[in-house]
Amino acid sequence: MTTPELYNQIQLKKSFLCIGLDVDLNKIPKHLLTLEDPIFEFNKAIIDATHDLTVSYKPNTAFYEAYGIKGWMSLQKTINYINSTHPDIFTIADAKRGDIGNTSSMYAKAFFEDLNFDSVTVAPYMGKDSVEPFLAFENKHTIMLALTSNEGAFDFQTLNVDGKELYKQVLETSKSWKNSENLMYVVGATKAEYFTEIRKIVPDSFLLVPGVGAQGGSLSEVCKYGMNANVGLLINSSRAIIYASNGIDFAEKARKEALKMQQEMEGILK
Amino acid sequence: MTTPELYNQIQLKKSFLCIGLDVDLNKIPKHLLTLEDPIFEFNKAIIDATHDLTVSYKPNTAFYEAYGIKGWMSLQKTINYINSTHPDIFTIADAKRGDIGNTSSMYAKAFFEDLNFDSVTVAPYMGKDSVEPFLAFENKHTIMLALTSNEGAFDFQTLNVDGKELYKQVLETSKSWKNSENLMYVVGATKAEYFTEIRKIVPDSFLLVPGVGAQGGSLSEVCKYGMNANVGLLINSSRAIIYASNGIDFAEKARKEALKMQQEMEGILK
Repeated sequence: MTTPELYNQIQLKKSFLCIGLDVDLNKIPKHLLTLEDPIFEFNKAIIDATHDLTVSYKPNTAFYEAYGIKGWMSLQKTINYINSTHPDIFTIADAKRGDIGNTSSMYAKAFFEDLNFDSVTVAPYMGKDSVEPFLAFENKHTIMLALTSNEGAFDFQTLNVDGKELYKQVLETSKSWKNSENLMYVVGATKAEYFTEIRKIVPDSFLLVPGVGAQGGSLSEVCKYGMNANVGLLINSSRAIIYASNGIDFAEKARKEALKMQQEMEGILK
Repeated sequence: MTTPELYNQIQLKKSFLCIGLDVDLNKIPKHLLTLEDPIFEFNKAIIDATHDLTVSYKPNTAFYEAYGIKGWMSLQKTINYINSTHPDIFTIADAKRGDIGNTSSMYAKAFFEDLNFDSVTVAPYMGKDSVEPFLAFENKHTIMLALTSNEGAFDFQTLNVDGKELYKQVLETSKSWKNSENLMYVVGATKAEYFTEIRKIVPDSFLLVPGVGAQGGSLSEVCKYGMNANVGLLINSSRAIIYASNGIDFAEKARKEALKMQQEMEGILK
């Protein structure tokens, strides 16, 4: 999917919501646990109930890997289900990968070719040659960590590097990499006041924004400082939507939460 | 495995070699490709041929993920084979993971519990709460990126942070984390002169050292500056050993290369 196509979907659905599929067997409704693949069945129900309200789904790979081969099968079935039933959805493998060049190429192959995701999240610590192998894929997007929503973000990301915070240096340096037009960035909603500075460095890029809701970030604040002419934001919500209920009505309640977010977004888009 | 047990293995085998199992179907001998699981068969042959010369195996997860579920099955069979036939081998999942706390817990579960590796590599960018969930596992080790062996290491890792390179800040900060005694660090061999400084910060920690051989690092230089009283080094070699030949004799030739490394190490240990 190209970014104009993503923008088009945002306009059509009046939503820039991304739903995080972080599926934990301890948190999903008990009645699903007797099924052959509870994780996939949970995702399928969530997708069926919310696909018209969201432009993106983001499975977090950790939650699948934790269940070994069965988990990886659930991930594959989930992405195949999204791609076959709703090809207009922008899919994100939240995998935080990154390694030396030939290894990053293998990760890119895993997520862009084998699983056919539209995008994957990567970590910047190993620099240019750990990210460029992802950027080489046409019409695929590489979403690099810039400023994350957790406490540990202040351990290194905000350290002063020659008069400038490290995450700003990461943003600036990445703009010089080959095919950098395929970059998007992770910026946590819990630090809304940082968006003004970030937009000075990457005015046109899409930002994937976790941390609204459960982690305390405010949607209106993020939009006030982070939105650009093409919206340029994907606001992620995971737990607040997918675990809105752990009863038989979980999908219905997830829809209700997603609708609340979509309506707030529709208001902002006006 | 505990670090004294690892040190004991080093003494017994007169080796601090780690063999990287970065298995690429395009590089392994053609005659294996007709088998049901060529990746596992390749690994099994390499393990059978080298287990007395090495104290550690390090499958790089990217090379397995690139083949989807089949690849993940090869990874599981490989770690099960090592654990069942050679329980004294220290196993490393080279996965470079790291995410917010509850997600890192799932990754830790994947590698320490589901796959039963002794250790996993992690990236530091997201800070304390992205690494501590790994450190919480008893007798398991978390190998954090400090200074890597690739060109991109100079993009961010060596930037000056308040008068000190970022990788030094990463090393120092990590020492204050809970269960930091379970930390080891990745330090690339291509930067041997940096080991003196690194040993001032983490004198007692084990360092996993990639980049000897194929990437140009020198074993004797690394040992000169990086070795401590308990050796404290695991020297990784991947391609130079496992791809020594791509003919029928690949395992035999891999053993020959591993033996060369082990003998050089035995000389240094004297």
